[in-house]
Amino acid sequence: MVSSSDSKSSQDEALAGMYGGEHRLCSTANPKLALVLSCEREIDLFELEQLCDAVGWSRRPVRRVRKALEHSLLWVGLWRHEQRLPRLVGFARCTGDGVIEATVWDVAIHPLYQGCGLGKQLMDYVLNQLRAMEVERVSLFADPQVVGFYEAQGWELEPLQRRCAFWYSP
Amino acid sequence: MVSSSDSKSSQDEALAGMYGGEHRLCSTANPKLALVLSCEREIDLFELEQLCDAVGWSRRPVRRVRKALEHSLLWVGLWRHEQRLPRLVGFARCTGDGVIEATVWDVAIHPLYQGCGLGKQLMDYVLNQLRAMEVERVSLFADPQVVGFYEAQGWELEPLQRRCAFWYSP
Repeated sequence: MVSSSDSKSSQDEALAGMYGGEHRLCSTANPKLALVLSCEREIDLFELEQLCDAVGWSRRPVRRVRKALEHSLLWVGLWRHEQRLPRLVGFARCTGDGVIEATVWDVAIHPLYQGCGLGKQLMDYVLNQLRAMEVERVSLFADPQVVGFYEAQGWELEPLQRRCAFWYSP
Repeated sequence: MVSSSDSKSSQDEALAGMYGGEHRLCSTANPKLALVLSCEREIDLFELEQLCDAVGWSRRPVRRVRKALEHSLLWVGLWRHEQRLPRLVGFARCTGDGVIEATVWDVAIHPLYQGCGLGKQLMDYVLNQLRAMEVERVSLFADPQVVGFYEAQGWELEPLQRRCAFWYSP
């Protein structure tokens, strides 16, 4: 007979094999749905493109996205776990020096998986990774419709006339 | 007899030896003052600390600054050229993936050298380097008193309620 804790630890081992030792199982209302965060599992760039399509972002050449990921400080995937074919349903990445500054970009949750707290768990995971690096300060740019989302998680909105954000297309 | 163009090219060679092939001589009103931009010459971290002190920034442990520079996409120094002891009088650095995103941090010109267009030349140099990498988009955060400085150089101020800047201390 296999005890519940044995079976849990064997599931953990199986997940660690697929998603790496730093993986985190998300809490969800549906016990049949296993959603796993990982900063170690490789991102399939065509799956990432499908996710970006699903959230309505404009496409970029895959070779440029590959290079951008290679030069990112951190990237995190959220997978709907299946033994044979996990599906990428969320993503975020950071650039930065890993010491003083980090900036979060491209936070996405597939529309079918939105509204159940996964974005918050994704951001918690990102911030934990940055905390482990001992990064001093994290910045991000957000669309106006998600201001409340970040404020609720302790992000400080930059008031105009304190530090001003600028953009440039070289 | 050495012609003027020969002497210019021998000066160029001497500067290239000290500051690298990508160096740029700044235009200044004082012909005796040679100010040189470079992304190749090594930054002395104690000189950088003195520059940060001079502009009034808070100090950071040198080992953290070293690591941050090592993990930056680009750093640029501005030196007051002297054959034996060039002095660091300006600085800027960028983080980013070098493809899609770059973010400019820590733009400083020593107070004694402010007000004569060196900040603009420093930023031009930074943007040229990013252009050569074919970075899509550059961002920065600026203090309110330098908003006009960046606007005059073609930077687009992020209006509140379009994309909002956030900060977080992990």
